Amino acid sequence: MRRAVVLLSGGLDSAVTLAVARSAGFEVHALSVDYGQRHARELDSARRVAAQVGAADHRTVALDLRVIGGSALTAPTAVPKDRSVAKMGTSIPATYVPARNTILLGIALGYAETLGAFDLYFGANALDYAGYPDCRPEFLQAFEALANVATRASVENLTRFRVHAPLLQLTKAQIVREGVRLGVDLGLTWSCYDPTPAGAPCGRCDACVLRAAGFAAANVHDPAAPGA
Amino acid sequence: MRRAVVLLSGGLDSAVTLAVARSAGFEVHALSVDYGQRHARELDSARRVAAQVGAADHRTVALDLRVIGGSALTAPTAVPKDRSVAKMGTSIPATYVPARNTILLGIALGYAETLGAFDLYFGANALDYAGYPDCRPEFLQAFEALANVATRASVENLTRFRVHAPLLQLTKAQIVREGVRLGVDLGLTWSCYDPTPAGAPCGRCDACVLRAAGFAAANVHDPAAPGA
Repeated sequence: MRRAVVLLSGGLDSAVTLAVARSAGFEVHALSVDYGQRHARELDSARRVAAQVGAADHRTVALDLRVIGGSALTAPTAVPKDRSVAKMGTSIPATYVPARNTILLGIALGYAETLGAFDLYFGANALDYAGYPDCRPEFLQAFEALANVATRASVENLTRFRVHAPLLQLTKAQIVREGVRLGVDLGLTWSCYDPTPAGAPCGRCDACVLRAAGFAAANVHDPAAPGA
Repeated sequence: MRRAVVLLSGGLDSAVTLAVARSAGFEVHALSVDYGQRHARELDSARRVAAQVGAADHRTVALDLRVIGGSALTAPTAVPKDRSVAKMGTSIPATYVPARNTILLGIALGYAETLGAFDLYFGANALDYAGYPDCRPEFLQAFEALANVATRASVENLTRFRVHAPLLQLTKAQIVREGVRLGVDLGLTWSCYDPTPAGAPCGRCDACVLRAAGFAAANVHDPAAPGA
């Protein structure tokens, strides 16, 4: 069976991406990165999601991005709250982690090389959240071009790498529906950037707001909603 | 003063690259990555080199690449020994770390973003060691293209990122001479992949063999040679 590496944060988008890769017939190898994110809670979700969706394997790589700083997700800076969905796409938010997706895809590429895999799955979404530069189609195309000159396979003229972003042009509501269709237990996923001290989603950060809007628009109950 | 981020392994090439960046007039910010390499000894060298060359800052990011494996540098596999320089370029050696330079440049890019730097320096060398796919000019060009769609600056239409590889077309002997010319204390640098239990260079791995050949061809005494 062909193998694929799937970047799995533990959030809604990456969980659905994992299920899409599996339904495409791949043996899926889930990869999480503990990069010092304040919502490390999502890594527990990643483990549970990997098991529920049927990943062949799940590994977590530790990378301390707090050393380079620059993001509200890895520093004791305030996470923006109570922003409307309409406002989110208009500028790059404080939760942007410099070059994060370049680094995450780089690690996934290295893992793919060791597995003999040529397919990388990544839950980037350009439609409902255009605020992050490294979620755009041109970024994914440039990374795929890089992968095909960066690796052993590119010297030895083997198969080309492909970067799959199956959610790229879906709305959050469509992602929710796709997750339901593929049997993902969405209650296992974790989106919140800034959990409460008791470990519940805050309900007010961009990730919580987008998630709630997506479930509402899909007319699906979110089993992991705050207070659900 | 304009800032540059310099990837500093602690080896000869990256030390000379740091000095080149400094002599080009940049305020240099050195960045090392502790990726689980068996020759973590090089990280001590990096710290000393950064101070001697006059870096404004030196940081070390921890990233555990042992989780994904695939290299003799991060696994308990044997490091190749006693290979001739002529033989090294003919195939990708066991010391290749999958996607390592993609990941290192990704972290450097993130650090540059937080510093407001647009210049990345990287000690890749294509001439005396063509064995690594991610030291080739086409790799560096692809990474530069990626950097310019991956970041905040690429959305906000700011300055373009540049990836500098000033040693790319130099022989090892030319690198040694450039280091001497720029006043780098080459005795502080560390090349060996497989230090002895006593902490000395093995003298037999590819890195030791290339280094010795370079110093010999430059007619320069290596103050850090085994037994020197």
